[in-house]
Amino acid sequence: MSQQASELFDNFQELTPSEFFRKNKQMLGFTGKIRSMTIVFHELITNSFDAAEEAGILPEIEISLKRVDKDHYVLRHSDNGPGIPEDYIMKVYCTMFAGSKFRNIQSRGQQGLGCSGCVLLSQMTTGEPAKVISSYKEEGELKGVKLEFKMDVKKNKGMLLNRENYEPKHTGVCVELEFKDVSYSMAEQGAFEYIRRTVIGNPHAKIIFTDPTGHKYIFNRAADMVPVLPKEVLPHPKGVTADDLIFMAKHTDKRRFRSLLTSSLSRMSNQRIAEIEEITKIDLNKRPKDMKWEEAERIVEAFSQMNFMAPPTSGLIPIGDEQIEKGMKEILKPEFITATTRKPVTYRGGVAFIIEAGIAYGGDSGRLVNETRKAEIMRFANRVPLTFDQGSCAITESLKSIDWKRYGLRDLDNTPATIFVNIISTQVPYLSTGKQSVAPEPEILHEVKQATMKVARKLQKYLRAKKAAKEEAMRSKIFDDYVPLILKESAALAETEVPEYKEVLAKVTKRSLAELLGENPDKAEEEVEEEFESNKDDGLEATEEEKKKRNQKSNEKKEEQRTLVDRETTLDDI
Amino acid sequence: MSQQASELFDNFQELTPSEFFRKNKQMLGFTGKIRSMTIVFHELITNSFDAAEEAGILPEIEISLKRVDKDHYVLRHSDNGPGIPEDYIMKVYCTMFAGSKFRNIQSRGQQGLGCSGCVLLSQMTTGEPAKVISSYKEEGELKGVKLEFKMDVKKNKGMLLNRENYEPKHTGVCVELEFKDVSYSMAEQGAFEYIRRTVIGNPHAKIIFTDPTGHKYIFNRAADMVPVLPKEVLPHPKGVTADDLIFMAKHTDKRRFRSLLTSSLSRMSNQRIAEIEEITKIDLNKRPKDMKWEEAERIVEAFSQMNFMAPPTSGLIPIGDEQIEKGMKEILKPEFITATTRKPVTYRGGVAFIIEAGIAYGGDSGRLVNETRKAEIMRFANRVPLTFDQGSCAITESLKSIDWKRYGLRDLDNTPATIFVNIISTQVPYLSTGKQSVAPEPEILHEVKQATMKVARKLQKYLRAKKAAKEEAMRSKIFDDYVPLILKESAALAETEVPEYKEVLAKVTKRSLAELLGENPDKAEEEVEEEFESNKDDGLEATEEEKKKRNQKSNEKKEEQRTLVDRETTLDDI
Repeated sequence: MSQQASELFDNFQELTPSEFFRKNKQMLGFTGKIRSMTIVFHELITNSFDAAEEAGILPEIEISLKRVDKDHYVLRHSDNGPGIPEDYIMKVYCTMFAGSKFRNIQSRGQQGLGCSGCVLLSQMTTGEPAKVISSYKEEGELKGVKLEFKMDVKKNKGMLLNRENYEPKHTGVCVELEFKDVSYSMAEQGAFEYIRRTVIGNPHAKIIFTDPTGHKYIFNRAADMVPVLPKEVLPHPKGVTADDLIFMAKHTDKRRFRSLLTSSLSRMSNQRIAEIEEITKIDLNKRPKDMKWEEAERIVEAFSQMNFMAPPTSGLIPIGDEQIEKGMKEILKPEFITATTRKPVTYRGGVAFIIEAGIAYGGDSGRLVNETRKAEIMRFANRVPLTFDQGSCAITESLKSIDWKRYGLRDLDNTPATIFVNIISTQVPYLSTGKQSVAPEPEILHEVKQATMKVARKLQKYLRAKKAAKEEAMRSKIFDDYVPLILKESAALAETEVPEYKEVLAKVTKRSLAELLGENPDKAEEEVEEEFESNKDDGLEATEEEKKKRNQKSNEKKEEQRTLVDRETTLDDI
Repeated sequence: MSQQASELFDNFQELTPSEFFRKNKQMLGFTGKIRSMTIVFHELITNSFDAAEEAGILPEIEISLKRVDKDHYVLRHSDNGPGIPEDYIMKVYCTMFAGSKFRNIQSRGQQGLGCSGCVLLSQMTTGEPAKVISSYKEEGELKGVKLEFKMDVKKNKGMLLNRENYEPKHTGVCVELEFKDVSYSMAEQGAFEYIRRTVIGNPHAKIIFTDPTGHKYIFNRAADMVPVLPKEVLPHPKGVTADDLIFMAKHTDKRRFRSLLTSSLSRMSNQRIAEIEEITKIDLNKRPKDMKWEEAERIVEAFSQMNFMAPPTSGLIPIGDEQIEKGMKEILKPEFITATTRKPVTYRGGVAFIIEAGIAYGGDSGRLVNETRKAEIMRFANRVPLTFDQGSCAITESLKSIDWKRYGLRDLDNTPATIFVNIISTQVPYLSTGKQSVAPEPEILHEVKQATMKVARKLQKYLRAKKAAKEEAMRSKIFDDYVPLILKESAALAETEVPEYKEVLAKVTKRSLAELLGENPDKAEEEVEEEFESNKDDGLEATEEEKKKRNQKSNEKKEEQRTLVDRETTLDDI
């Protein structure tokens, strides 16, 4: 009965990546009809953005989605990027694990699966080939080519079906794919909402979208400048493992290990090299290939004990509060908008990140649900909207930990507001391969909370002023004449009690006013209490003046929670 | 400023699967120290089980975990399977996406990533090579070899460092791996708990585990029979897509499409072929390679309209209630144990599955938390314990939807009970790549609920009987003499009121008894109410006799929810 091992191994197979993902398309995010459509939009849009930005071009994308039948569409996606050279087109679209984003850089794409995943889904649901027109410059000359191809799923390669020359007018790529078992939806997780949020996160981009009904949406550029290119950032010593050092050593062309360190890691100066040699007693002049694992471990251990300047952050390019406000204004046409960009900090000792937050109120802010506008949260990572897995995301966790009542938003859910949060990093710590939720690193939670509280406080001020202005208009002459008088005389009479009296008087005044306006007097009285309560310390970081007063206590707290970041210095700095 | 496309593509790379997973080890389940260790145990154990069972051998595994330092261990894992032929050893352990489980069979492993993932983790955290001793039969002769190797991460291949002959005594594989940044834990998500649950799900297996303190745990076989081998099940017509048909057509050696259908799909007879030809007007005698996509789509559409017998289920091998009880008894030494295995049903029209449930009470059941025993849920898929992602799993959802009060378990959380649920299928619908939670298919939710209610009801009967026996012993002579008398006389006096009187009398009696026993009389009264209440219909499927009475209503309901399953028939059956 017992089979021989050799017989059992008759079934042994090696799958190529494309075969593997064909069996496991959920790993590419293609779960369910709506989500699959949104992911396709996501992959093509992020690819176009990354391409245009790297070439220093302001992105412009034109998308049209034509409905053929129920759950059956043709998608046409054009961009104005630098184009793809002919030899690389099928690698980009038919080879999984191929791409140019495997560097330590703030980018949207990361895995080399996006474009080929879309072609795979198209082929699996319709059997149709993909069509790509690419216009690009080669040695100063503008060239154009049109390819029609399919993916050979067994080989992880493309199969060319047709090639034509193409008369190019400007650089860019146009791709056409047909899909079935996908669904276009206006719901929160659908493709349209994805475009809308993408435009908010990328106000320098223009998107023209023609939906299946033929309706054309033009999302104009809200800002003109090209965002500064994210630079490739060298890994920080506090973030490397022994395995990383050995891997680098194995594949480097440097002759000495010390040169490998200074050229591959940030903040690595000759002074630091000397320090490492002293701590570990390892000669760093040796050849990289002679470095042993056990020595690499000791070097990593030394790193963790040494003081390095925080990682350089010039490679991180946030959107910026001004541009966030422009973007949100353009889309949401709110009554009130404010945004903030925090300073760079690090998580896990060595990875730099920046948090940005914004809040929009009124107008088209919030999400329309059965005639009511409800609060909506828009999460972004490196400017890419995170649509799914909201429940498990650190951003959501952080926002939930805020006591919104203190900011005058007692019922946040039913407030017509949009809260925007973006995390920028060379290494966004995603919870899983779907890249839709961020891991709850303590520093990230703290920064999101601080940024959001800051914008929430500004909204609160606005709402109060708005309400005060309304009340002002309604105030009767009698109160205007008498209240200050009573206050003054009473204060003179019972000086130490003035603060409390203010609260009592405010309550009396507000209650009467409420009854006059036909509102709820009890509620008005509660609001007074909250106002007086929230003027006490709520944990929001103090302004510069307040800081000096509270310096003694907060120094300790800050040292635990934040890494001070200096301006960038050269490698030879001490 | 604008860079040429060709310059930008200088950075273009193609990663091998191993390079990719090195950068993304969370995709292999290696997130956090405790979980990483548990996943390593999981991968090696499931691989050994699958290997032994396919060869018809009762599995026996010996594992030892030695602590070298904090978060630093050496793991040694031996099994008694058929062994691995020398030429395949490095493919199994160093090539990602390679394996023998890519068939439509009830198996534990599925992706060809398990063993190589463990070697990758070992290498990334310690730089040490893997050591494997393999003893296997070749042409009737017993051979043995010892290999020491590392993974070439850039090439997705193994690099042999050393080879020795080995004197084998019996077939099997012994693998030794060193790890850092992993943690051995006795907590619910730790490796020990994983072994404990694995043994419950696999009572035919023997595991000997020596933990880092040197303590040796022997988990004996609870059952002797070799479980019948799961057979490879042909895909069911209602579960194939057009892409599947085209893919099969492209890679088949059959000359006619009709032969491809009858040999590749289950329930496909000549009668069915004729039916398909009539509906679609496609000549199925044509060569597979001539089949067009559009025709494949029409065939799939025809399948969905036709009546096929439900999928054959002989390929599905449940554990069986007897073996579940044996397994749970061995480990939990409970006061009470019961299990049930449901009949096969299908989800999504064409995929067969079986649900098994068990409940153990008292003894070592439940989980000890601060001196109290709390209820624990053990989820399994194809006998593999699902340790993580409990919150999102359909099994959990289903168990939560049960009204446990009806079964006498008012406070389920604080009940010393272990609830066991196992789903068997050729295609367990996992929610994500981690394969730790099951998708909430309606048929699956229904089956889990029914199976669990059935065992819960048996537990309830046991608990009642237990309590009644206790009360019996305490009953005083006075009650024994007088209650029957009162009952009889009152019944004679007011005959139509006897049922209610029973309840009233029962309450009076129980209250008095409770006070006598020093218990809470109000609680006793409540219990009487519940007893009378639960004797009404709770949704649990009726017994055979009850069924006949309620046939009219339940027929409709059943047709919606369940596919009737006939015994297996041959291909030529109508």
